[in-house]
Amino acid sequence: MERTKIAVEPATRPAMKTALEHAVESAGGEVVPPGEASALVWADPAAAAAFPGVVAAAPELEWIQLPYAGIENFAENLDPARTWTCAKGVYADPVAEHIITLTLAGFRHLHTSIAARSWPAQEGRNLLGARVTVLGGGGITESLARLLEPWNTTLTVVRRSDTPFPGAARTLPLARVHEAVSDADVVVLALALTEETRGLVDAAFFTAMQEHAWLVNVARGGHVVTDDLVDALRSGAIGGAGIDVTEPEPLPDGHPLWDLPNCIITPHVGNTPEMGLPLLATRVEENVGRWIRGEELIGPVDVRAGY
Amino acid sequence: MERTKIAVEPATRPAMKTALEHAVESAGGEVVPPGEASALVWADPAAAAAFPGVVAAAPELEWIQLPYAGIENFAENLDPARTWTCAKGVYADPVAEHIITLTLAGFRHLHTSIAARSWPAQEGRNLLGARVTVLGGGGITESLARLLEPWNTTLTVVRRSDTPFPGAARTLPLARVHEAVSDADVVVLALALTEETRGLVDAAFFTAMQEHAWLVNVARGGHVVTDDLVDALRSGAIGGAGIDVTEPEPLPDGHPLWDLPNCIITPHVGNTPEMGLPLLATRVEENVGRWIRGEELIGPVDVRAGY
Repeated sequence: MERTKIAVEPATRPAMKTALEHAVESAGGEVVPPGEASALVWADPAAAAAFPGVVAAAPELEWIQLPYAGIENFAENLDPARTWTCAKGVYADPVAEHIITLTLAGFRHLHTSIAARSWPAQEGRNLLGARVTVLGGGGITESLARLLEPWNTTLTVVRRSDTPFPGAARTLPLARVHEAVSDADVVVLALALTEETRGLVDAAFFTAMQEHAWLVNVARGGHVVTDDLVDALRSGAIGGAGIDVTEPEPLPDGHPLWDLPNCIITPHVGNTPEMGLPLLATRVEENVGRWIRGEELIGPVDVRAGY
Repeated sequence: MERTKIAVEPATRPAMKTALEHAVESAGGEVVPPGEASALVWADPAAAAAFPGVVAAAPELEWIQLPYAGIENFAENLDPARTWTCAKGVYADPVAEHIITLTLAGFRHLHTSIAARSWPAQEGRNLLGARVTVLGGGGITESLARLLEPWNTTLTVVRRSDTPFPGAARTLPLARVHEAVSDADVVVLALALTEETRGLVDAAFFTAMQEHAWLVNVARGGHVVTDDLVDALRSGAIGGAGIDVTEPEPLPDGHPLWDLPNCIITPHVGNTPEMGLPLLATRVEENVGRWIRGEELIGPVDVRAGY
């Protein structure tokens, strides 16, 4: 199968399909229907239902590029006979920026100020010099550490591997997560959702946090036991939460989180399509070039681990 | 007059007076009543009315240390026969952090998300890579440039002097301010309030800005013609405003700015007393040491310029 023949499907997001077709061509590839392709670039993160049909019609596929960092929508289709890559690291910088946005908003009491219709109390805390604990040692955490480099923060990273995270004062394994969050001013969730991490942030986790500390979640809503979060915010077990992801998502109207004054909810915009499409196109162009030249691809999926 | 004898007045903010007395003593000074002092550390930014009486009772005063960076409350008492210092640069880092907070909040649509009771539209823009124009070339701008160093922004600085601002892509004089703001994604006010700058940000200024651009004001409300700001926010002449200072201040209940959805108002908390007191105490300790040793003081006030 010729390695220049690449399919870009589906057509449900025309702007994304067009941008990724251009990326394939810029890298020296030829855009072809799935039945003729050695590789498939999937061009709609939301259209997972159509995925098995397209793959079934493409018997010669060797490599599949997925468009997001989180791939749980495609998890049941992962087939170890093929090479899979995802958009790991592509959106890291905008997502790290959003972590800082939510943290500063909480520390600087914007949840109070924005709701106010009268001069509010003068309150606030600095991110400058604060203690930051991040769960997850991937590209988002690398970006966050880089963006905060001049801010004199003390970084703790919780990850599966024992390897010390560059720039972190401490690197701890998941088994010591309660210890890792116990002295943090902000706890950031930036890890992949797996069976091991689902529901990790529960009542005991909140009890381990300081009462003034904020939780910031830009990963997946499923890491958090939502009812326990509601309780922690109501009781003052933690200072507040800035969450860009929820479970369920979108958060339904009338959910108690909407009315909690110390909860800032953003609609999964760590990276928006406008921010992310140029970044994804750059990654696809890079990987298609590598594919054609037979080089190692960026963002490989560990099919067994599921991310 | 012995240079170790220093008064710390008034007593209206006990925590500040205590912290600054400790700072004087740590530097080798002796805390004495104003009548015996060679120098006065003023310990309440809000108590300017009491200032003339204390100074009149202190005939030997040679040096006066004021507690804020902005000194307009004390402007009519400035006497060129004495040495005056203010807290210029002391609060620069927290204020620069607040500039970033307000900018990110606007770019990331927190004014919409925090007010929402239903999953909002996915919108947003990055500060990463954005064009930032700052009016003022002092310590706050230096801190801002330092904190944003890894963020790949393009910085334009507007200042009185022709000297290129370190780290800025462009440095322009105040006469070219409309040109300086015309391509900015965010325009930051971080300059001293003088007769030259009062009302500088008016309808013509907003017309010069881009329609998506945000105004962030951490300087003084008097730089801005408030009615023109209301009009610009209502008409969509600019994207929004994040203002930590207002005119009048505090902003009265019922003022139209409270109800504008693209206006984020914080209650003059660029630096709060909790953030700032340790920083001020460090400065006072440093300056008292310099005063005793006869060295140059940090943060001198230009009595003629009024800042």
